[in-house]
Amino acid sequence: MLNKKENYEVAVVGATGAVGRRMLSTLEERNFPVAGLTALASARSAGQTLRYQGRSIEVRQLNENSFKGIDIALFSAGGAVSRQYAPIAVESGCVVIDNSSAWRMEKGVPLIVPEVNPDALGDKPEIIANPNCSTVQMVVALKPIHDRYRIRRVVVSTYQSVSGSGQKAIKELEQQSRAVLDGKPIEKKVYPHQIAFNCLPHIDVFLDNGYSKEEMKMVNETRKILGDESIEISPTTVRVPVFYSHSEAVYVETEQPMTAEEIKKLLSEFPGVRVVDAPGKNEYPLAVEAAGKGEVVVGRIRKDLARENAINFWVVSDNLLKGAALNAVQIAELLIKRVSS
Amino acid sequence: MLNKKENYEVAVVGATGAVGRRMLSTLEERNFPVAGLTALASARSAGQTLRYQGRSIEVRQLNENSFKGIDIALFSAGGAVSRQYAPIAVESGCVVIDNSSAWRMEKGVPLIVPEVNPDALGDKPEIIANPNCSTVQMVVALKPIHDRYRIRRVVVSTYQSVSGSGQKAIKELEQQSRAVLDGKPIEKKVYPHQIAFNCLPHIDVFLDNGYSKEEMKMVNETRKILGDESIEISPTTVRVPVFYSHSEAVYVETEQPMTAEEIKKLLSEFPGVRVVDAPGKNEYPLAVEAAGKGEVVVGRIRKDLARENAINFWVVSDNLLKGAALNAVQIAELLIKRVSS
Repeated sequence: MLNKKENYEVAVVGATGAVGRRMLSTLEERNFPVAGLTALASARSAGQTLRYQGRSIEVRQLNENSFKGIDIALFSAGGAVSRQYAPIAVESGCVVIDNSSAWRMEKGVPLIVPEVNPDALGDKPEIIANPNCSTVQMVVALKPIHDRYRIRRVVVSTYQSVSGSGQKAIKELEQQSRAVLDGKPIEKKVYPHQIAFNCLPHIDVFLDNGYSKEEMKMVNETRKILGDESIEISPTTVRVPVFYSHSEAVYVETEQPMTAEEIKKLLSEFPGVRVVDAPGKNEYPLAVEAAGKGEVVVGRIRKDLARENAINFWVVSDNLLKGAALNAVQIAELLIKRVSS
Repeated sequence: MLNKKENYEVAVVGATGAVGRRMLSTLEERNFPVAGLTALASARSAGQTLRYQGRSIEVRQLNENSFKGIDIALFSAGGAVSRQYAPIAVESGCVVIDNSSAWRMEKGVPLIVPEVNPDALGDKPEIIANPNCSTVQMVVALKPIHDRYRIRRVVVSTYQSVSGSGQKAIKELEQQSRAVLDGKPIEKKVYPHQIAFNCLPHIDVFLDNGYSKEEMKMVNETRKILGDESIEISPTTVRVPVFYSHSEAVYVETEQPMTAEEIKKLLSEFPGVRVVDAPGKNEYPLAVEAAGKGEVVVGRIRKDLARENAINFWVVSDNLLKGAALNAVQIAELLIKRVSS
């Protein structure tokens, strides 16, 4: 439980990872009221130094005593670490904002996108889950549509960047791309198949129903965040040879009929969304342009060719920012706003 | 109109292009009964030499007299060339198999995928259209499903390789990829935006309804080939940084309920299709594995999570082969089989 303070003691768990580094820079860029920043990681990464507000911070090894005196802990070190250490952090009086999938579907754990369901935060949250990157950007675009027209069905295909698999995957795409261009054999470590100049319809592990865990995250998390278990979602999640930002082709069926113009207006008025939609002028959302920015960019908004109650759009966002670090920091901002008011 | 012969005089128009070269190699590999092969191209490419059956063939400039004595002309030199020269070729007594979009939707012009609608060829075809690459591979997978369960609706997102835009685009992806890896500025000639490590939701030009021509090709050509104007199709076509083969995430709603097992069986028995579908063993269709092969590879076949009459699958094929050159040569084979029987 968070108490009102001028500035807060913040810990980042998994601080040396692709998301952890973005958490540090996002706290800095958004002038989050940090009293002290503690960077935590595994034994392997402990001792490294990171930059925060022009100072060097030594990364400490995560252990059971790491959370003494910490007010807010941002976790991004994988599900197993979150399962083990989030309760310890809570026990130490810390509020946990967790970027892993460990707690997201747990009853009583709020799963929050601040623009979408801030009220789900509850009165005294202990662990707050940050949704999966591919879910966040889609649900931001779906929310105003759902509120106005009631969404019944979504068919989504993703084009997800390798940074979602961490630093090693960024390296793998780089190295494999060079190898292919030079006509040399490729090395595979992170992905089971070549990712350079290829598309893998495989993110996370596969389940008995034929869907991947990533696909089921999009189904279950979207329903939980929108608070509507009746929404039907048919996802295909695909890894593409892009470094940063996920793109998604989204088809939406609603209860009420709608027009593309209405949807454009709704989306352009929604916080955190930028509509880039002038295809005739070659303007539409692009992964390389969304990278490094916090926005959810939507375009190619067009009515279904047959149905009055269906549309298609293309949504792009930086998976490490709005899909992870930025959303986590925004949750922290929501928290401190709550205790301040 | 084709007359029965032992061997046929064949011309390839656009012989130096990405598809034209595959037409030559496909004729060779499939032992098409070629009496003589004439390679035709624009003034710019005339004089170049190409290899065919171990011999050098000089590329001649396309003109009004190019088709004298030719039995079958395979066109792949763009819509304008086809519009102008296909009627001249027909006038010379030649049957034209055209890979451009110029004639596809013309009434009376058969649009043929030999496994799917051979009977649409008609009695005395003059110009026969080869469908768009993204349509061919989808329609091969849809055909047995439509026959058994009647398709009502398709939502498709494509992951299309740059070779669909020709040799220059292959070069552009290579050069831009190197530039990005080396931290140098990129050059854009073929695409309006960076294609290296990026996804462009833009193929062909955009129309007033917000869809691209490529998307409308998938709609209109699929209906014409399946002979059913009632099928609703919602497409998003996307260029991805892949050299060869298109991938597609396809969602299908049918009139009759179905199971994933039934669809797997149906597809595995359909000519030209290979089912690769053991995701737990990391086996699913991949662009880099489909490249250079004629098959349409289908996998990730799974029931919709909510509906009994909906499934998802992932279909991959080499866009220059089944999506273009191979399908054209298969149409020629169908033609000579007809006149021989």
